Amino acid sequence: GGTEGLFANKTLEITDDVLASYKNQGGFDLLGRSIDQIRSSKQVSAAMTTCQNLNLDGLVIVGGVTSNSDAAQLAETLVQKNCKTKVVGVPVSLNGDLKNQFVETTVGFDTVCKVNSQLISNVCLDAISAGKYYYFVRLMGRKASHVALECALQSHPNMLIMGEEVALSKLTLMEVINKICDGVQARAELGKHHGVLLIPEGLIESIPEMYALIQEISILHNNNVPVTEIPTQVSPWAAALFQFLPPFIRRELLLHQESDNSAQLSQIDTEQLLAHLVEAEMIKRTKEGRYKGKKFSSVCHFFGYQARGSLPSNFDCDYAYVLGHISLHMIAAGLTGYMATVANLKDPVHKWRCAAAPLTAMMSVRRHLRGPGAIPIGKPAIHPSPIDLKGKAYELLREKASSFLLDDFYRTPGGIQFEGPGSDAKPITLTIEDQDYMGDIEMLKLYLDKVKTIVKPGCSRDTLKAAISSMISVTHVLTVMSHPLNAELPLYHFN
Amino acid sequence: GGTEGLFANKTLEITDDVLASYKNQGGFDLLGRSIDQIRSSKQVSAAMTTCQNLNLDGLVIVGGVTSNSDAAQLAETLVQKNCKTKVVGVPVSLNGDLKNQFVETTVGFDTVCKVNSQLISNVCLDAISAGKYYYFVRLMGRKASHVALECALQSHPNMLIMGEEVALSKLTLMEVINKICDGVQARAELGKHHGVLLIPEGLIESIPEMYALIQEISILHNNNVPVTEIPTQVSPWAAALFQFLPPFIRRELLLHQESDNSAQLSQIDTEQLLAHLVEAEMIKRTKEGRYKGKKFSSVCHFFGYQARGSLPSNFDCDYAYVLGHISLHMIAAGLTGYMATVANLKDPVHKWRCAAAPLTAMMSVRRHLRGPGAIPIGKPAIHPSPIDLKGKAYELLREKASSFLLDDFYRTPGGIQFEGPGSDAKPITLTIEDQDYMGDIEMLKLYLDKVKTIVKPGCSRDTLKAAISSMISVTHVLTVMSHPLNAELPLYHFN
Repeated sequence: GGTEGLFANKTLEITDDVLASYKNQGGFDLLGRSIDQIRSSKQVSAAMTTCQNLNLDGLVIVGGVTSNSDAAQLAETLVQKNCKTKVVGVPVSLNGDLKNQFVETTVGFDTVCKVNSQLISNVCLDAISAGKYYYFVRLMGRKASHVALECALQSHPNMLIMGEEVALSKLTLMEVINKICDGVQARAELGKHHGVLLIPEGLIESIPEMYALIQEISILHNNNVPVTEIPTQVSPWAAALFQFLPPFIRRELLLHQESDNSAQLSQIDTEQLLAHLVEAEMIKRTKEGRYKGKKFSSVCHFFGYQARGSLPSNFDCDYAYVLGHISLHMIAAGLTGYMATVANLKDPVHKWRCAAAPLTAMMSVRRHLRGPGAIPIGKPAIHPSPIDLKGKAYELLREKASSFLLDDFYRTPGGIQFEGPGSDAKPITLTIEDQDYMGDIEMLKLYLDKVKTIVKPGCSRDTLKAAISSMISVTHVLTVMSHPLNAELPLYHFN
Repeated sequence: GGTEGLFANKTLEITDDVLASYKNQGGFDLLGRSIDQIRSSKQVSAAMTTCQNLNLDGLVIVGGVTSNSDAAQLAETLVQKNCKTKVVGVPVSLNGDLKNQFVETTVGFDTVCKVNSQLISNVCLDAISAGKYYYFVRLMGRKASHVALECALQSHPNMLIMGEEVALSKLTLMEVINKICDGVQARAELGKHHGVLLIPEGLIESIPEMYALIQEISILHNNNVPVTEIPTQVSPWAAALFQFLPPFIRRELLLHQESDNSAQLSQIDTEQLLAHLVEAEMIKRTKEGRYKGKKFSSVCHFFGYQARGSLPSNFDCDYAYVLGHISLHMIAAGLTGYMATVANLKDPVHKWRCAAAPLTAMMSVRRHLRGPGAIPIGKPAIHPSPIDLKGKAYELLREKASSFLLDDFYRTPGGIQFEGPGSDAKPITLTIEDQDYMGDIEMLKLYLDKVKTIVKPGCSRDTLKAAISSMISVTHVLTVMSHPLNAELPLYHFN
């Protein structure tokens, strides 16, 4: 029963027999999922009571940013209350947004991206076969665009509208629409009237005026303003935006009001909103004589639930087994409030480095307003990492963007393979980022070698002195830089 | 450009180089798809002109029931007009409804069923993990339920509502709803509040009163009655049904009016209609005290386009290569109006039997009314085959139905494999039906052996005489039975 089962002390002894039919399978049906939360003091104390009643040595919490934030809080509470149960986190999430100096990727991300890329590539081939539809595909993955970026690199769709890009450039809704329309127009000039666009579900949060409108509606809703009166009570510019939106989106904005803002946002059919507005803009451009291609037609998709519960990829199976083993060792070693981590994932398994990293080292306190009048949130938490717009993966996408847009350079990865070619494939973003890291190390080696080449027997005494002085300074800085982290947050290494 | 490219004489010479990057790939992007039709006299004559201009030896038409009906008509026209081009059909369709004594299955059916089964099994595991949602999954496949049946046998969802079953039992919409609700209730009594239902897109056509309502609306529409007035002008019982339906379905019924009735029907979100009505009925049952389980919640899916264009399964690749070779031999042999066929598909490739079957042998003339006032349709065509409700595949489903419903006996086939276990899997329905056919042959052999056992040296003269007389009669009947078909419609065998 998931966390509810934990609160209610529902137990199941996992023997080899029980486990046999669940090994290497997808889903969470062995232990179940329920509310995925151990947060309120009532929930925390229920979890603690169960730990005490069962005299548990360890509790392993499997999940993403929120579950592991909960794990940290629970670990602290158990220590305070002298409960012996050690709490250990394991990074598992399809969103791929639990990513930091300790965690290279999460279990499930590879599988979900592979299944989605398979479906996107099917849609790409369907699009180019018929040559007359634009497919707008929305992908799960919460606020960050990791799933969408990985899928784009795997399947090469024509466009990817990333939330992080939109947020950085502060693009308005109409600027996003115009960007898409310019792409449609550029393709039409090549005689292409089909295409595939990827839209991360978090995009809607990244468009400033949409987010603000949603916040205004949310506040009125919380003040018990009747739904029918909300449109007349929002600010004038928000009302103008609201009236501009198609009716089905207006309904969704008014109806889907839940306590968790991010959950609510994911229920908005962003792909339909964009398709609708792009169509309207293309009709406008046609009337004004700016667009002379065929009529724009779209088909919308939301690839979410059907990628969850999939048979996991070989990489995810390996990764999960290793994390499971680490968890056991962590509890045996008496660690609490730590996460099982594996480094060097891009390398073959024998080069993987197992470790335990303190959950607190991944946590930070953010003060951000959630819309006008909202109060600052000041609780420490593990926050979702956005796409690094200076990273290699994004750079690769940028390099290929124009070819993706115009050349129909679709790539067909197919279903997840368990044997033969492709069965050991890892997420492209993981591989690239690691190449970048190793590349930097190579570059450092080059510089060190260069120093050796310059400063060798025969060089001037002054050069030698300068070199020694500089290197003392460099090593000092590096020692200081790496020391405080090690002291405060000891990394626990298994060898 | 598909058929439009054919009409416009757009050509492409397919060399090995051109073909190299398309081999074993999905989609129709090498030659394109457009209107998938060579039917009107204008279209037929445009196709003929191209054939003559290019001095074509043969034209290979790849498609399902409608494309091959068109192929037959085109072949006849070309012969009448003394055009030398031979027209050959190849059975390719994801629907699996081109199925008869010559055609065991179509290219694409295996792939589409495997991709859909993969997604359905993902959804099943997601459903059982959370334990609180019913997933209503609508599948493509036109009027017949072949895709849905095959997917059900591959993934073992809790329920499958087959159009053919509903049509045979003449179930009303509310009877279908009650059937689903009874299933939900039976599961709730076992403490299960989740589930997965498969709904073939053709189901809506099979519910008598829904079909009649759609026809009434269609006729009013064709008589240019304004959309707003249609609801008031339908017959009283149709108006009552219309008012009973949820608003989004009413809108869809009124708005989606296209010339091709079947296309229009597929745009109705049947899965949402059923989910909506099941929820209403469960609320009603709760109020009446007949249902005491948790609140019923549903999530809807339409698995259509994302399964097309997939990398084909090994079976589909093999099958398509063989059909291509047959087509070449058929044209070389001067056959026109024939379809390339392969028998014994369930056996290893070396046991496959290649043949050419006359398209006319698959065609029939049906006189059926399409709603009140419609005129009889009397053109020969290849008609989609419904599921054989006396067949082995359906029998297997019936046997397992109660276990599927209650035991969460979900099966996880995973993505299409190209190497290793499962890579040579064939459609279950194909394998079962073939086993049935071979089983009958085995049974016949048993009877023949029994005759030999009874009538052997030592048996009475009378027994011998009776046996000879009976066997003369049997062989005579069989000769007559098999002769007319052979005479009129010679099967052309390649050895």
